[in-house]
Amino acid sequence: MLTDIEIAQKATMRHINEIAATLGVSSDELEHYGKYKAKLPLSLIDLSQVAENKLILVTAVTPTPAGEGKTTISVGLTDGLNYIGKRATAVLREPSLGPVFGMKGGAAGGGYSQVVPMEDINLHFTGDFSAIEKANNLLSAAIDNNLQSKTRNLGLDPRTIVWKRVMDMNDRALRHVVVGLGGTTHGIPREEGFNITPASEIMAILCMATDLEDLKKRLGNIYIGNTFRGEPIFARDLHIVGAMAILLKDAIQPNLVQTLEGNPAILHGGPFASIAQGTNSIIATRMGLSLSDYVVTEAGFGADLGAEKFFDIKCAASGLKPDGVVMVVTIRALRHHGGALKEDYGKPSIDLVKKGLVNLEKHLQNMRLFGMNTVVAINYFPGDSDEEIELVKELSANYNTPAIVARGFAQGGKGMAELAYAVADMVENRPSHFHTLYTNNLSVQEKIETIATKIYGANGVTYAAKAQQQLKQLVKLGFEHFPVCMAKTPKSFSDNEHKIGRPTDFTIHVREFEWASGAGFVIPILGDIMRMPGLPSVPAAEGMDISNDGIITGLS
Amino acid sequence: MLTDIEIAQKATMRHINEIAATLGVSSDELEHYGKYKAKLPLSLIDLSQVAENKLILVTAVTPTPAGEGKTTISVGLTDGLNYIGKRATAVLREPSLGPVFGMKGGAAGGGYSQVVPMEDINLHFTGDFSAIEKANNLLSAAIDNNLQSKTRNLGLDPRTIVWKRVMDMNDRALRHVVVGLGGTTHGIPREEGFNITPASEIMAILCMATDLEDLKKRLGNIYIGNTFRGEPIFARDLHIVGAMAILLKDAIQPNLVQTLEGNPAILHGGPFASIAQGTNSIIATRMGLSLSDYVVTEAGFGADLGAEKFFDIKCAASGLKPDGVVMVVTIRALRHHGGALKEDYGKPSIDLVKKGLVNLEKHLQNMRLFGMNTVVAINYFPGDSDEEIELVKELSANYNTPAIVARGFAQGGKGMAELAYAVADMVENRPSHFHTLYTNNLSVQEKIETIATKIYGANGVTYAAKAQQQLKQLVKLGFEHFPVCMAKTPKSFSDNEHKIGRPTDFTIHVREFEWASGAGFVIPILGDIMRMPGLPSVPAAEGMDISNDGIITGLS
Repeated sequence: MLTDIEIAQKATMRHINEIAATLGVSSDELEHYGKYKAKLPLSLIDLSQVAENKLILVTAVTPTPAGEGKTTISVGLTDGLNYIGKRATAVLREPSLGPVFGMKGGAAGGGYSQVVPMEDINLHFTGDFSAIEKANNLLSAAIDNNLQSKTRNLGLDPRTIVWKRVMDMNDRALRHVVVGLGGTTHGIPREEGFNITPASEIMAILCMATDLEDLKKRLGNIYIGNTFRGEPIFARDLHIVGAMAILLKDAIQPNLVQTLEGNPAILHGGPFASIAQGTNSIIATRMGLSLSDYVVTEAGFGADLGAEKFFDIKCAASGLKPDGVVMVVTIRALRHHGGALKEDYGKPSIDLVKKGLVNLEKHLQNMRLFGMNTVVAINYFPGDSDEEIELVKELSANYNTPAIVARGFAQGGKGMAELAYAVADMVENRPSHFHTLYTNNLSVQEKIETIATKIYGANGVTYAAKAQQQLKQLVKLGFEHFPVCMAKTPKSFSDNEHKIGRPTDFTIHVREFEWASGAGFVIPILGDIMRMPGLPSVPAAEGMDISNDGIITGLS
Repeated sequence: MLTDIEIAQKATMRHINEIAATLGVSSDELEHYGKYKAKLPLSLIDLSQVAENKLILVTAVTPTPAGEGKTTISVGLTDGLNYIGKRATAVLREPSLGPVFGMKGGAAGGGYSQVVPMEDINLHFTGDFSAIEKANNLLSAAIDNNLQSKTRNLGLDPRTIVWKRVMDMNDRALRHVVVGLGGTTHGIPREEGFNITPASEIMAILCMATDLEDLKKRLGNIYIGNTFRGEPIFARDLHIVGAMAILLKDAIQPNLVQTLEGNPAILHGGPFASIAQGTNSIIATRMGLSLSDYVVTEAGFGADLGAEKFFDIKCAASGLKPDGVVMVVTIRALRHHGGALKEDYGKPSIDLVKKGLVNLEKHLQNMRLFGMNTVVAINYFPGDSDEEIELVKELSANYNTPAIVARGFAQGGKGMAELAYAVADMVENRPSHFHTLYTNNLSVQEKIETIATKIYGANGVTYAAKAQQQLKQLVKLGFEHFPVCMAKTPKSFSDNEHKIGRPTDFTIHVREFEWASGAGFVIPILGDIMRMPGLPSVPAAEGMDISNDGIITGLS
């Protein structure tokens, strides 16, 4: 069995000009980054094509810690669609560099369903994350410079500043720091922290923006903190929005790469799925739909978070209309939701799968709440029994949903052909009636309650004292019209990660709020959110090397 | 009068494939970064060509704060050499991004002697600085992760750690910070600081390395601090040298761009001229000499620092043999060294220039100490009088040195033709007898004394108590065989920035030592060194904007 990097290194890549040609894009229109990566100019976006072509969302059941393989399925499905003669493009997130050196893993896809060049994509790629980091930290430097200023001081209260610096590195020692030490010439001492770059609101903004003008407007709307007199300060008050946008001028353009089978893949942006929308940029999705008959895209975490945010935040803001949903499930996840212990995930069990199917069923029902049709993709693992698979098919059939075994990891596009036929049939012959779950004129509490009761199956919502206080503040700040971006554990429909399957008789508890007023959403915080990972005891970095000829080993 | 960015934006650039073709490099051999930037693979280096072709160092008299225009002269001379029919390439440093948003200025060259695309070069360029930043900060994260480790702890004493994080941003609030706060799961609290990225030893290392193997060896030799038992800890002890090298795999390749006149320019690396060697990479210089008959290169600060380090550190380590020196002088600098006040730099004064010539004379004499011939380039400013220029010519003639008025800023290559003829004559017809000033088997004190007495004209060297202590430590660490990289004010031959002209009867005082054991030098610190600039009261960033079509304004 080859590792992901070995499979990727053995691949014979096509020149990116050839990939672009399949999309009708000439070499002259590309900004090349070597032979296998290129940026696509925004001028290629054609909104009439966006409306006409087919948008397929890949989402998943409530995941186990290893994840259920949404990206692998997305890449494999793209290859499968091309295999059966459709013109399809995968439109996905870019991975973050930091975690590559921490725990093993990262990459985009796995096995024979990967995007390449895998190493570049996992390292600096085309510099988008670095540009976002710089724009974020320029704002931070401007904030501290203003605190230091005698003549142009905005009166910002350092204790209220919520804007943090970022670094794309797993570095726990930067979570809580004090900056500005050393005396009067070195700034004002204050508490500060670093998040990992994908947690930056700039990342969320880049993925919500439709062009440079919209980007600048959103950057200006970033909330920083309050003055000592209680007035809010926004990024626009520091007069560096133009400079931030200059830093992002290349990052705003989506990146074209290819699958292992030489089909087009557009990777762009990678906002956190916890405190942000967890899906690639509106620009990239529009780009894919402008150039391709089918776009396969995905959203982070299970469908209760990823799909809901995709519909209610991304599609609501952009007018994108998805044509069908692929619900990824693994038999091991169903065993888990049926009560299997981690060490038994690999052991066939009809009983546990039967019990665990309630999780899949709830997710399928939820997709109907958005007017969406579904196909279930069973991401195949050796050891999955025919009987278990049959149970999934039976349940899915109740929801007019084909359930297809997907073998892209081991076989590439050929192993995804059956799924591709089912997906093509869905988006061509079963029209979606997409609508969002709620309208933005509801109050923030009403929006949260709608999601909690309808999608999570909760009885209701409670609020901590701090959250109640902040509800008043966000109304005063004029943020009530924003959609909500739930920050909840992905491991359960509820806010208690131990409640597997389909929990009932629970309420969710909002501890506090944050807001991303540039990206355009309010974030109810339901649990602890990791924004800066640490390195493990033996970081993956220790197993990595590069030869004098540039051959990389140990990256996975 | 057009600004630099207006001149640059008006330029019609040639496709980088055409520039490469003039160097005999095919499009297939390039790694493209858009249409006007490309990376050159190390396989193009040909050491027999390196030995045969002509290497010209552009250095300068002791500068005024605005600088005397070495980069402008280097670019202009390259255009001038091509103008008179020679095949010449400029090989220069990459600018740092941070200062672009602080004080105005940056760029590479000025007026009609610039390298382009100017905006990209001043922003993210090809990601080299970002890669260096990541490699630096991965080492930092590994250090803090080791401090936190229960099972693999090296016993590093946090109070001895000299390795700092870096960020390419003018951000004074990061100079002195405390990291690792927040409790047991967030690391060990300790004092820390951020330097700007070009001050990273990784930058110095990248510019000293000859290939990936050499890079890895140097990365492993980075000194971090001591254990509680007093044993030194190096980067290799953390087992992440391979991962750091992976992050640098693209950054190690030099970048090809072009001058405004479409001649080749290779930009690579940008180590500080204060605490490091202040010149582009050995790899880039070798690359230029492999592909071009003439290479024009430069080194930061005046010749007492830039040229001395170029010869004794870069050439000594790499075996590069320079063929001639261009000494840049401005009439205003000579007025300054004659005693002019800043507000009178622009006023002609035969008396002050006469007095100030002692500075130029000492620099010309110093070049003889390395066996080098010289040509003086008078970087012309409106208001320079014929009589003043004549004085420079007379003085230079005493040293068998033509002094030529250089008008590249206003006229491009045509205005540099006369200088180009003189330089071509020097390197073709007046063989250099290059040798270093000292050999590395001398003691560190002997090396410092040699530089101080011969180059600076000092009577001797004194050492602070701390420096004396550290001299013992560096002998114990086995660093005595390294060359020394003087950290002295560039504003005077002495270590007192107020001593203009050619100071006499002074000693220099070494306050303390640092060492860059990966880059391979010992750094005697003679004054305060700025390693992290701040933003000014009105940052240049505030005047910048970008239109929806991507047109940048306010960047200079």
